[in-house]
Amino acid sequence: MTSYVFDFSHGDKDQKDLLGGKGANLAEMTRLGLPVPPGFTITTEACRHYLAQGSEPQDLRLQVTMALRRLEDQVGRRLGDSVDPLLVSVRSGAKFSMPGMMETVLNVGLNDYSVLGLIEASGDERFVWDSYRRLIQMFGKTVLGIEGEAFAAALDAAKQVKGARSDVDLDAADLKDLVGDFKEIVLKHTGRDFPQDPREQLDLATRSVFDSWNTDRARLYRRRERIAHDLGTAVNVCTMVFGNLGETSGTGVCFTRDPATGRPGVYGDYMTNAQGEDVVSGIRNTLSLDDFAALDPASYGELRQIMRRLETHYRDLCDIEFTVERGKLWMLQTRVGKRTAGAAFRIASALVDERLITLDEALERVTGTQLANLMFPQFDPGTARTALTRGMAASPGAAVGRVVFDSPTAVEWAARGEQVVLLRRETNPEDLEGMLASAGILTSRGGKTSHAAVVARGMGKTAVCGADELEVDSVAKYAQAGGVRVEEGDLLSIDGTTGEVFVGQVPVVPSPVVRYLEEGLDAAVEGADEGTADLVRAVDRILGHADAVRRLGVRANADTADDAARARRMGAQGIGLCRTEHMFLGDRRVLIERVILAATPAERASALEALLPMQRADFTDLLETMDGLPVTIRLLDPPLHEFLPDRADLMVEVARAEERGEPDERAIRMLAAVNRLHESNPMLGLRGVRLGLTVPGLFSLQVRAIAEAVAARIAAGGHPHAEIMIPLVGSVMELHLIRDETDGVVAQVGADAGLDLTIPVGTMIELPRAALTAYRIAEAAEFFSFGTNDLTQTTWGFSRDDVEAAFFAAYLEKGVFTVSPFESLDVDGVGRLVRIAAQEGRAARPDLKLGVCGEHGGDPESIHFFHRTGLDYVSCSPFRVPVARLEAARATLTSGVDAASA
Amino acid sequence: MTSYVFDFSHGDKDQKDLLGGKGANLAEMTRLGLPVPPGFTITTEACRHYLAQGSEPQDLRLQVTMALRRLEDQVGRRLGDSVDPLLVSVRSGAKFSMPGMMETVLNVGLNDYSVLGLIEASGDERFVWDSYRRLIQMFGKTVLGIEGEAFAAALDAAKQVKGARSDVDLDAADLKDLVGDFKEIVLKHTGRDFPQDPREQLDLATRSVFDSWNTDRARLYRRRERIAHDLGTAVNVCTMVFGNLGETSGTGVCFTRDPATGRPGVYGDYMTNAQGEDVVSGIRNTLSLDDFAALDPASYGELRQIMRRLETHYRDLCDIEFTVERGKLWMLQTRVGKRTAGAAFRIASALVDERLITLDEALERVTGTQLANLMFPQFDPGTARTALTRGMAASPGAAVGRVVFDSPTAVEWAARGEQVVLLRRETNPEDLEGMLASAGILTSRGGKTSHAAVVARGMGKTAVCGADELEVDSVAKYAQAGGVRVEEGDLLSIDGTTGEVFVGQVPVVPSPVVRYLEEGLDAAVEGADEGTADLVRAVDRILGHADAVRRLGVRANADTADDAARARRMGAQGIGLCRTEHMFLGDRRVLIERVILAATPAERASALEALLPMQRADFTDLLETMDGLPVTIRLLDPPLHEFLPDRADLMVEVARAEERGEPDERAIRMLAAVNRLHESNPMLGLRGVRLGLTVPGLFSLQVRAIAEAVAARIAAGGHPHAEIMIPLVGSVMELHLIRDETDGVVAQVGADAGLDLTIPVGTMIELPRAALTAYRIAEAAEFFSFGTNDLTQTTWGFSRDDVEAAFFAAYLEKGVFTVSPFESLDVDGVGRLVRIAAQEGRAARPDLKLGVCGEHGGDPESIHFFHRTGLDYVSCSPFRVPVARLEAARATLTSGVDAASA
Repeated sequence: MTSYVFDFSHGDKDQKDLLGGKGANLAEMTRLGLPVPPGFTITTEACRHYLAQGSEPQDLRLQVTMALRRLEDQVGRRLGDSVDPLLVSVRSGAKFSMPGMMETVLNVGLNDYSVLGLIEASGDERFVWDSYRRLIQMFGKTVLGIEGEAFAAALDAAKQVKGARSDVDLDAADLKDLVGDFKEIVLKHTGRDFPQDPREQLDLATRSVFDSWNTDRARLYRRRERIAHDLGTAVNVCTMVFGNLGETSGTGVCFTRDPATGRPGVYGDYMTNAQGEDVVSGIRNTLSLDDFAALDPASYGELRQIMRRLETHYRDLCDIEFTVERGKLWMLQTRVGKRTAGAAFRIASALVDERLITLDEALERVTGTQLANLMFPQFDPGTARTALTRGMAASPGAAVGRVVFDSPTAVEWAARGEQVVLLRRETNPEDLEGMLASAGILTSRGGKTSHAAVVARGMGKTAVCGADELEVDSVAKYAQAGGVRVEEGDLLSIDGTTGEVFVGQVPVVPSPVVRYLEEGLDAAVEGADEGTADLVRAVDRILGHADAVRRLGVRANADTADDAARARRMGAQGIGLCRTEHMFLGDRRVLIERVILAATPAERASALEALLPMQRADFTDLLETMDGLPVTIRLLDPPLHEFLPDRADLMVEVARAEERGEPDERAIRMLAAVNRLHESNPMLGLRGVRLGLTVPGLFSLQVRAIAEAVAARIAAGGHPHAEIMIPLVGSVMELHLIRDETDGVVAQVGADAGLDLTIPVGTMIELPRAALTAYRIAEAAEFFSFGTNDLTQTTWGFSRDDVEAAFFAAYLEKGVFTVSPFESLDVDGVGRLVRIAAQEGRAARPDLKLGVCGEHGGDPESIHFFHRTGLDYVSCSPFRVPVARLEAARATLTSGVDAASA
Repeated sequence: MTSYVFDFSHGDKDQKDLLGGKGANLAEMTRLGLPVPPGFTITTEACRHYLAQGSEPQDLRLQVTMALRRLEDQVGRRLGDSVDPLLVSVRSGAKFSMPGMMETVLNVGLNDYSVLGLIEASGDERFVWDSYRRLIQMFGKTVLGIEGEAFAAALDAAKQVKGARSDVDLDAADLKDLVGDFKEIVLKHTGRDFPQDPREQLDLATRSVFDSWNTDRARLYRRRERIAHDLGTAVNVCTMVFGNLGETSGTGVCFTRDPATGRPGVYGDYMTNAQGEDVVSGIRNTLSLDDFAALDPASYGELRQIMRRLETHYRDLCDIEFTVERGKLWMLQTRVGKRTAGAAFRIASALVDERLITLDEALERVTGTQLANLMFPQFDPGTARTALTRGMAASPGAAVGRVVFDSPTAVEWAARGEQVVLLRRETNPEDLEGMLASAGILTSRGGKTSHAAVVARGMGKTAVCGADELEVDSVAKYAQAGGVRVEEGDLLSIDGTTGEVFVGQVPVVPSPVVRYLEEGLDAAVEGADEGTADLVRAVDRILGHADAVRRLGVRANADTADDAARARRMGAQGIGLCRTEHMFLGDRRVLIERVILAATPAERASALEALLPMQRADFTDLLETMDGLPVTIRLLDPPLHEFLPDRADLMVEVARAEERGEPDERAIRMLAAVNRLHESNPMLGLRGVRLGLTVPGLFSLQVRAIAEAVAARIAAGGHPHAEIMIPLVGSVMELHLIRDETDGVVAQVGADAGLDLTIPVGTMIELPRAALTAYRIAEAAEFFSFGTNDLTQTTWGFSRDDVEAAFFAAYLEKGVFTVSPFESLDVDGVGRLVRIAAQEGRAARPDLKLGVCGEHGGDPESIHFFHRTGLDYVSCSPFRVPVARLEAARATLTSGVDAASA
């Protein structure tokens, strides 16, 4: 027989799958002998059965009966008894915390008889009627689906009759009357009486917790947080204890360290004569733990002991809820506490010092995303600031600017040099230009997967989304929250890492972690406050260990010597992608234009010749900066017309000149050339290796420049390690043909320089066909570098520019994606191609080097996948290099390696 | 020890891989006891060894020595003997015929001594000196690499001295002198004497045949004909027999049936006192076989007997070369003869009548390409015509038009209603518009893989390419060939099926095969000449058998009831792809424009509502036409802006109006809408299912129209089998979401009509991701239809429009493709995805129906692949349906089925 019910005394913290997080931790505390009110957990398995079949498992009823009997025997009270009755709480508790998403019913077991028993036992009539009133209200809303409005109205009416200003002004008699009113409401709305049978109350409450797993709200939350929909929730049935039985009672929350900064010490709040919901509702001010110590030294002492015990046991920051009932301390909940990014590093490092965890475990306690957040500029923590509101931390960073309420204004103000923050209810594709022009984006609707959030992350813009307290009037151009009104042009500061929004200009300070990465530990620690110094030391220690542990190499994508130098400081072990097209922009655009517009082969050859010394100098600088490390240089990739003026603009120019009767010959000639190169889908056009095979001399020029740069560096005593990468290969024949050409050029340059030059040649794997025929392509490639951006575009058949803004938000909302496939690699589709290419390429050429140079190279989840797939390195933007170092190390601890990749 | 040499008496016709076509057939004839001059074959294996290693296999020399000794013993003469010497011919002979591509050396064995023996044996001094002269000339050119010019000049000089007008005027003494001159030339050019050792002659000639496999010419030919480069050629060493030993000698070629029409009877030419090369050179007129019969009844009688024997033995049309040496008949070669498309069908059917082959074998004797060629309109065979020249049959059909020499003229003339033929040396991407405007394309350069050929086939335009006799002057605007001059504006007729080019207008007649397909056998036979009637009956018989044999179903792609009706007549078993976007063109464009430009949901809903009755009527007509057969309707696929005006044109319109000071408000508003929908890569943009998920109501409208049409047809007593197909699906979630919507609509329409409507819903597999996750997608799809055009575009990452013209010719020339992947499926890349999706889709859903609706559905090679992969049907354009029926049947005979697809 399957066990669907576990007493708290049978279970432990590792059973979160079955008992949910709350249940597993209650069991653990019980096992440790801590004062947990007795109770039992109904498993997630029962919930899943209920959700799938529409009814509870057959055995459940009996198992609950038995558990209840054991509970009653243990506490010596009976549910619904007219003498000192047992009351229980019924709480949801899924594997992953979903705060506020699911249901809770307290005081189950009260009915018209047991109230009397409870009054006698507690000696507090008002408390008991209030408890009964709360049960009916909560049960009515949650279990019976009655609009909360009805109960609120009755409560208001009662207060009005009494002339009471607050609930506390109602006495026992008033509350008893109110219980009557509430029962009327139940009868009226459901056609039947409020259930008096305590067991019926319990069963219905349990079922309503099950049901609450599938509310729209809960589903939406899980989508946002990437929690699977098929886990289900457990239900915890726990003996009620009361913090609201007078001044010797109370309730509190506490942390074993500061979750905001990671500083050692205990932190928490306490409220006398209150229940948990009172603390949350913020009616009264809370006391500090020191106050609590003064008030009830015995309970406080016991609590401190338990806190130490729990932290040592969990070997991590614990977040604890407790209640004192008439001087007796009860533990209601504990869990490993959430913390800020900075706290995560400091705590992990401190726990190593305290010998509670190993360095490997410290690595598991921090994430690349946390490190990335620490690397954004931050609002100066030392400055006073005025909070306006808060929303979801949708895209990290700190942005300050003048508020605008529409995109045209954003574009206009930005054009005249203003920093702007675009504030909208929500954004849509027509806001793209405005978003691009803004320093930050703030919306009052939508969450982390809303259009604004998706697009902002894609653009790397700071964004706070779904700040739902904000009322936004984009016609009248103002917004307000909590009585504060913001007009167009007012300064706002938004923190995309925390979701906070401030009025006025909060000063932004550079990240101390970046300073450490750029300048080293000593420079970063010198003059820093203790917290900052502690943080930087923690990062240094953990990153150092990461470098020792990881198997994946980490390179950077960098096009210039400056970028490369920064990447090297950030810890890059080479350049995985140097895009040469960036070397043809600016002043040099006119040179590549000459190549494109050349009328004869001779003209083209001479135009190419003019480019040679510049390219050579570019590569020489780059190789010098990265001396001793590999530098992968990609030959020209984009279609040629990208270097020419926009076709539609030219057409307009020509037409305008013509209308004016002054035909513009230069524009007409240019238009003819542009028309010749025009493509309706440039991404799928004449670019990459196709260009190399159809524009004679182009790739040879670049290869010559690379080879000559290598020769020059060797002559200068350097250790250059250039690698030549061919883009957009779909067939091994393309690579053979290009190599026929380029290998000859390298040999020639080597011969001229009297050197035996060998420059490895490899290819991007960025087309599905390249992946599918990798076993052939490996014949002609010394390395593969996965271009996962293009591979994502071709595998899905969408172009990032065209569709991300147009429908990604909708796709995320509808659950087609859980995350944009451009942010995190689509393992099932694109990842399958990567795996095929890696395995079959290696089978054909065992020493094939495998890397990735798409943006996914800096994404934590994707890095774990690349580790599993057996790649040799990832390459990402210089700023993501530390993140990649960290996650590559974490992958060795948490991810296996695919059998075939081992 | 590997045998590299096979006597003709050891081998047979099935050893073409080893002995080459010629050698295998010589062996076969020898085996049959026919009078073949004795000899032996050096194998292709020896050639491959030589080509790979740069030297002959070690054993070869000894094996040739032994074979030569056996030959000498058999004929009782010795090579190079001074008494009645043996002479041999040394001829290439690859597995596949490569006419004129490789080398031949005759009269090997003649030297300064053996000439005397031959004079004595033949009694014809002039003949012998002429033979020696020919040997030195041929050997000098072929083996020693001396320019033919040198020998020709010496021959001319000899004639001049003698005052001779032709070779025949030179007597024995003149020729003897010429031999001396030729030997001088050899000495002068090579620094050594003409080799007198007959064995050295033989070995060098053999090696030169090996070398000739790899000439540029031969490589180009193989690329064009898709023959592998690694086969190598065999070398046939054969006792010389002479047709030029006086009036009782001669040489001829003959066919056992008419290779042009397939008519029964013998066909051939004979020339007395001549060698094979004389027949080819066309110096004298040839005699008919009847004349030969009168001249030499005995030899003719023997030849007729052998012809019958060979045809019965090969069970096919044989192409024969023979020589009569002083009244003795010798068979020099036979092979299964090439034939026209029409002849192929007639002969196959006739051989069935003659019980030589089965109907299955008849199927193997014809191809879909031949059937397709028979379906093009043809030049009226009964009309006199004047040949101008001929080139390669690059893209089939018959085109007539006025000649133009450049693209702008083609565009201009076509715009004023002229039919034009574009004549260029070669075409390049700038000729695209001109090609599009022309009825046919003719080039003097390039072959079947040239730019002109590739693009013409892509466009479905008739083209003849590489008519290299044509001199083209596109500046002076004329061309000439064989003294005939063609000026701009002259009429030309070009036959893309045969490569013929005629001056003037040759009348075009419709294909009798199409008439048969459209109107049935009786109508096609009635009043037709015997040959045509015979052809049509043969096609009917073979297609009938094909339908009985094939496993693959054949459907058609058709968007209208008219197309569908035609497809049904052509034998389609359903519609595999009905593109609904075509229903929004013409007058209805304004309606879809209203949908797109709708400002509010209500406006859009009403615009959609207006489309409903039209869509319903479209589908009702289609279902009526295809009553009883499946009709797969694809929901709207293209991006919406395709229904709006071109963006650049609108920008010009707006700018022009502005310059004129008359702003065009309508154009400005339209431009705003177009800008909103603008995409830089529309193929990778918001289309297909993405549109369905973001434009509320669009897919529902179409599904409602389909469901209502089905209901209407049922009400009318019909048997509609509509299937709904969702385009561009990349993830199963998209399909689930769409089905949530569409299944409800179908159920609603069914409920309203009081019917239990079930309409299968499936998806296109046209994105790599769809194929890679087919095991998931199959959960929500009742069928898959492979959209191999889009799948090719995304797998390779190129758009057909953009790259086909820009670089496919170069890619074919360089061997990256052997055929355009849009013509014939790329089995290694795209095919692998098809196989993955088919296998994994079926594994997940065993009753999953699998079809293909890309253009590859009508391509013979691709059809064989689809058969092997276990698909259920192919769908192609109505005109290709008969081709597909035929090839689907041939696939069952020649292609296996993949193990996992069985």
